[in-house]
Amino acid sequence: MPLRSLHFLLDEYDVDAALLTFLPDIRWATGFTGSNGVLLVKRDQVYFVTDGRYEDQAKQEVRGAAVHVPGYALHEHIAEEGWLHAGDRVLFQADYVTVNERSRWDDVYDTIDWHGETRVLAQAVAKKTESEIDAIRRAQAVTEAVWSDVLDLLRPGLTEREVAAAITYRHLQRGAERMAFEPIVASGANAARPHARATDRRLESGDVVLVDMGGVVDGYASDMTRTVVLGSPPPDFAEVYGVVREAQEAAIDAARAGMASDALDDVARSLIDAAGYGEAFSHSLGHGIGLQVHEWPPVSFRSEDALPEGAAITIEPGIYLPGAFGVRIEDIIVLRKDGCDRLTQASKELLVL
Amino acid sequence: MPLRSLHFLLDEYDVDAALLTFLPDIRWATGFTGSNGVLLVKRDQVYFVTDGRYEDQAKQEVRGAAVHVPGYALHEHIAEEGWLHAGDRVLFQADYVTVNERSRWDDVYDTIDWHGETRVLAQAVAKKTESEIDAIRRAQAVTEAVWSDVLDLLRPGLTEREVAAAITYRHLQRGAERMAFEPIVASGANAARPHARATDRRLESGDVVLVDMGGVVDGYASDMTRTVVLGSPPPDFAEVYGVVREAQEAAIDAARAGMASDALDDVARSLIDAAGYGEAFSHSLGHGIGLQVHEWPPVSFRSEDALPEGAAITIEPGIYLPGAFGVRIEDIIVLRKDGCDRLTQASKELLVL
Repeated sequence: MPLRSLHFLLDEYDVDAALLTFLPDIRWATGFTGSNGVLLVKRDQVYFVTDGRYEDQAKQEVRGAAVHVPGYALHEHIAEEGWLHAGDRVLFQADYVTVNERSRWDDVYDTIDWHGETRVLAQAVAKKTESEIDAIRRAQAVTEAVWSDVLDLLRPGLTEREVAAAITYRHLQRGAERMAFEPIVASGANAARPHARATDRRLESGDVVLVDMGGVVDGYASDMTRTVVLGSPPPDFAEVYGVVREAQEAAIDAARAGMASDALDDVARSLIDAAGYGEAFSHSLGHGIGLQVHEWPPVSFRSEDALPEGAAITIEPGIYLPGAFGVRIEDIIVLRKDGCDRLTQASKELLVL
Repeated sequence: MPLRSLHFLLDEYDVDAALLTFLPDIRWATGFTGSNGVLLVKRDQVYFVTDGRYEDQAKQEVRGAAVHVPGYALHEHIAEEGWLHAGDRVLFQADYVTVNERSRWDDVYDTIDWHGETRVLAQAVAKKTESEIDAIRRAQAVTEAVWSDVLDLLRPGLTEREVAAAITYRHLQRGAERMAFEPIVASGANAARPHARATDRRLESGDVVLVDMGGVVDGYASDMTRTVVLGSPPPDFAEVYGVVREAQEAAIDAARAGMASDALDDVARSLIDAAGYGEAFSHSLGHGIGLQVHEWPPVSFRSEDALPEGAAITIEPGIYLPGAFGVRIEDIIVLRKDGCDRLTQASKELLVL
């Protein structure tokens, strides 16, 4: 019994076989969690090929594919086994195969009619099962427990890096396999940079502190941003916080499956525009999340894609005022026919610590 | 004054320009530490193009290139500026550009004679300057201080994951920007799997414990493996430890610039073979290390490449006895004309905790 059937690819792209190489997709399709492997989908059989390091692991984990463990020459093995035939039309993932890899295939395989496509499994991967959503929920629960720890910890004198180190440690202690990304701890004017990293800057009274963090549980990522203030807030902070919070809640209230990506982005963006901060919201509203912390679909003014039912996405508007401070609030939701489920529970009340 | 001159590429590959996209190489060449950018090398000028998120950062960090900050359409900007001309022969990094990216270039650029090559900068990047070696030393010093912490901490009852979490936290506390990779903490029979990850297994008296870890300082990675035993060692442990240690020391003693990769691998492998454990040493002897924790050159029976002067490499033989235990010892050395410098100071005495 396969974890997921991939045969629809053969019909959808009108090919004889599909050669999948992107590991998060292979994990999604088969359950394999190792770092090397290739999946060949044919109408009558699915083959998973990996190297000797993963022999036991592949045999335990892989569902719905015949496991082969040659040496490191995975493609040579596929060619030698004769699973592909001269003239076969074969789908591959053009957004994950390098020019060099693709060119080496010509030395290995004979006369294949290669058919490269992008985002081959993006739609299928986006639609989460209840067990996938449960994994994201559990990752998010770790992150929210860590957020409670952080609120107890935050005080003037600590450096951003010290807070980031504590965030990482608490995630691992509380059951995350690893971080989904390096935590962002941005204080004072650093919070005005949307992609700040933690620095050696010490927190001061009056600082706005923006924390963006996520961990991984059973392969699935969490992702949450909260913005708080230490002591007396800077001018305009309460107003800006209110605008971001209102925009974020409006987008969550409006979100439903089938909506166009740019239309959902616009729900938040038009409110921020109307408040006079349009220029200061310089990034997209959100992104898909799952086995990858950033996956399709984007929630963006640059995309007209319809947002699929069952997709887990982030909603994270922000306002960044260079030299002063920034505010971002980020939750995860799951899109349903008539609205969405909220996976994030942490409070969004303005917190003055 | 450029951080490094890349004009040699134009002569070496007989091209009019080189379009570099691999970010660790761009960091190496210019100092840029952000996550998006393209470097165009021409004979009379070098251009660095990034998006608006990195405007200030690029202007602060980038040396030896004119910084351009259009929107997100970096290649469109290069095409519009007219820096490339019809028929130009342009080098690109075929091992880092996907088939899809390469194909999109055809929509952006007119009539370029694209020339894809692999490992374009590998030789140059491998030869470390003294300031790069100093950064690796500082990263390694953090890792060795953490190793002292770990030796104080290790005891029966802790889980592998708890030890790994402490390793990560101590690295961050002691000044690492981030981990170079997820720490491996493998105990008991888990240590017999060369690519084990930390699990929820609790350490027991009599366990062999293998710890492989590294952090990043100023962009450069450390990497060290030590193997210790808790209480009374299993049968053959002292013998196996002695064989690995002797093989590792022999390889370090033999290592010098200009040696063939497989010849250095063989120094360790032949000793392990002679002791009867050849089958149990299932991986290569080592790898280059720098801005990436694994970079060219491999130190491997599969490579005849000459090891360049100034390269920082790991030397990490191992013996893995399935169902019983494993031993690996890993240091970093820098290859010199007449031998090597040792960057790793931590003791390799057999430690019974």
